[in-house]
Amino acid sequence: MIGCENSKKSDSDSNKEKCLSDDVINLDQGDPTAFQEYWMKMKDRCTVVIPGWDLMSYFSDTTNVCWFLEPELEKAIKALHGAIGNAATEERYIVVGTGSSQLCQAALFALSSLSEVKPVSIVAAVPYYSTYVEEASYVQSLLYKWEGDARTFDKNGPYIELVTSPNNPDGIMREPVVNRREDGKVIHDFAYYWPHYTPITRRQDHDLMLFTFSKITGHAGSRIGWALVKDIEVAKKMVQYLTINSIGVSKESQTRATTILNELTKTCRTQSESFFDYGYEKMKSRWERLREVVESGDAFTLPNYPQAFCNFFGKTISTSPAFAWLGYKEERDLGSFLKEKKVLTRGGDRCGCNKKYVRVSMLSRDNDFDVFIHRLASIKDRKCNQP
Amino acid sequence: MIGCENSKKSDSDSNKEKCLSDDVINLDQGDPTAFQEYWMKMKDRCTVVIPGWDLMSYFSDTTNVCWFLEPELEKAIKALHGAIGNAATEERYIVVGTGSSQLCQAALFALSSLSEVKPVSIVAAVPYYSTYVEEASYVQSLLYKWEGDARTFDKNGPYIELVTSPNNPDGIMREPVVNRREDGKVIHDFAYYWPHYTPITRRQDHDLMLFTFSKITGHAGSRIGWALVKDIEVAKKMVQYLTINSIGVSKESQTRATTILNELTKTCRTQSESFFDYGYEKMKSRWERLREVVESGDAFTLPNYPQAFCNFFGKTISTSPAFAWLGYKEERDLGSFLKEKKVLTRGGDRCGCNKKYVRVSMLSRDNDFDVFIHRLASIKDRKCNQP
Repeated sequence: MIGCENSKKSDSDSNKEKCLSDDVINLDQGDPTAFQEYWMKMKDRCTVVIPGWDLMSYFSDTTNVCWFLEPELEKAIKALHGAIGNAATEERYIVVGTGSSQLCQAALFALSSLSEVKPVSIVAAVPYYSTYVEEASYVQSLLYKWEGDARTFDKNGPYIELVTSPNNPDGIMREPVVNRREDGKVIHDFAYYWPHYTPITRRQDHDLMLFTFSKITGHAGSRIGWALVKDIEVAKKMVQYLTINSIGVSKESQTRATTILNELTKTCRTQSESFFDYGYEKMKSRWERLREVVESGDAFTLPNYPQAFCNFFGKTISTSPAFAWLGYKEERDLGSFLKEKKVLTRGGDRCGCNKKYVRVSMLSRDNDFDVFIHRLASIKDRKCNQP
Repeated sequence: MIGCENSKKSDSDSNKEKCLSDDVINLDQGDPTAFQEYWMKMKDRCTVVIPGWDLMSYFSDTTNVCWFLEPELEKAIKALHGAIGNAATEERYIVVGTGSSQLCQAALFALSSLSEVKPVSIVAAVPYYSTYVEEASYVQSLLYKWEGDARTFDKNGPYIELVTSPNNPDGIMREPVVNRREDGKVIHDFAYYWPHYTPITRRQDHDLMLFTFSKITGHAGSRIGWALVKDIEVAKKMVQYLTINSIGVSKESQTRATTILNELTKTCRTQSESFFDYGYEKMKSRWERLREVVESGDAFTLPNYPQAFCNFFGKTISTSPAFAWLGYKEERDLGSFLKEKKVLTRGGDRCGCNKKYVRVSMLSRDNDFDVFIHRLASIKDRKCNQP
């Protein structure tokens, strides 16, 4: 399921040499281990120390709608959005979750519970984040029903559109497509709306916006996400979901996320220290290497992204998504083909699309990325890939 | 929602003086803050230090069915059960969850998904843990359906019985009551089967057993629970639920739980240091004070528990449950009555029972417990309580 399949511990570096040979490379999940090197360079700067007697209660602030949200994390989230300029936080409730997956389900629960008519249709434009299908289906809820592609959706009645922008898997900036205001709600998933992935062209200002710690800094193991929610009734229902589902969110993770987000904010204008400068250069360099291989052959396709002025960096920059939406120029099950080459990716069919596309994580460790580029270079021309 | 309602931060001690006056005392939730004093005495013994670059991946051990379970936590769990002798861990899969609430829902999902006929009936004998009703109902799943009291359950078809032992709310040791082997499954919730609450009379050895870190040591804020699961297919389905629901469990919390559980194991035979010796004395003393007040009046009732030989302590001990199941000797809405006295409790109706009973947390801070005993003493006689 990860990096080298025969490596037991994901954080181990002992597998570097092995991977250079012919082990299976897993670029299916988006495990954001690429950024670990930055945090290693930071050494003790974000070390957290938690004594045994601390963080014992279920409760963080009983006066807050989200009673399990640590007040310092709330401040850190607001400060970071303020510094980056990617989202409005004023006049909003912040709801913390065990990752943004749990929050997305809390939002589906909240919006559909508050709908007079049920089940509420859930849609997302193709290609969509494959996990949405599972999140909207697995418990077979009577509150909502997965209805697939938002572009072909024509059912009457209430619906919720999931809008991921920039999109997972293809990195495109997105807007809702259904737009039936009278009975539609939108969940805006901004997991990747950070300047190392995409130019920050506007301060997002929607009713329900999701963010995740994992994809900003790479701390996926902490399972911290947050929602910015305008309507108190929606926020309350989300908190109800999180209360029944897991009685809140790990305080240790909240404490660590607070420390790390505060460090991001503090250093974001110091180029030599800024995580976002580091992350932008890292992602840009990986995309240049990927494009070079793809463009030097005739087998593969990649989306093109317009350059745009980034309000955060104060200059025109390119887009370097967390996933590559790799296509094959002929009809072919690209996922199976790459699997033969010992590269695991997520098939386009899981994203509601054609199997000639795959989603490839661009956030692996350097070594896995090197091997991927190496293997892709060996199959970049169609004439060499005949069955 | 906690201790003193006008105190903002649960872990603050600044509210001690206020509570001695006439603030609202919240004994509704079972926030286990009683044990914090033990951990303060332990000072730095269980301090965890987490550098910024650590615990970043989603993955803990990709060779394990529960791929997000930290291997050191698995060892710590097995060692503690071995030292206490309360549950068999051999030939079982350990599944970690964001508290045992999430695991209970994962178990409902797993057992019902694997059932040919759906929805599967969910039952528990009255009085039951009120949260089970919410857990089995809130997403309106087609997989399972809450059917209430196990004792009056007479529907045909598959069912799952939730057996909490010792029981929440009334502290009684329990066995399944439906016992239709051909189509019944049992989830054994052993949240309170630890020697500070109840004599350890046998090593539990069931197909699906739930435990929670919160109620052992008081670390509710960590949101760590675990399931011991015999059947690999059930374990896999539970992991599927946890993967979709929250993509695993906080690594920071797992790391801290590992440190603390290891300390429990290491010191459990050293009387001066043992958490269980401390916890047993603490709970016993609180129960003695509570019984003294109740028995000195004629208004209230409490369950009686037989003494029993505890295999862990090696002697006959009494039972001191985490909740008191307080009854009133006449028909009366006891929860409302106590609320007038500024003591919040959980009404017996929420546990499928009569309103003349309430569940009272015995795990509050000392100060809140003192105020509770003081207020109860002022209403212990019926003749003073006429409306």
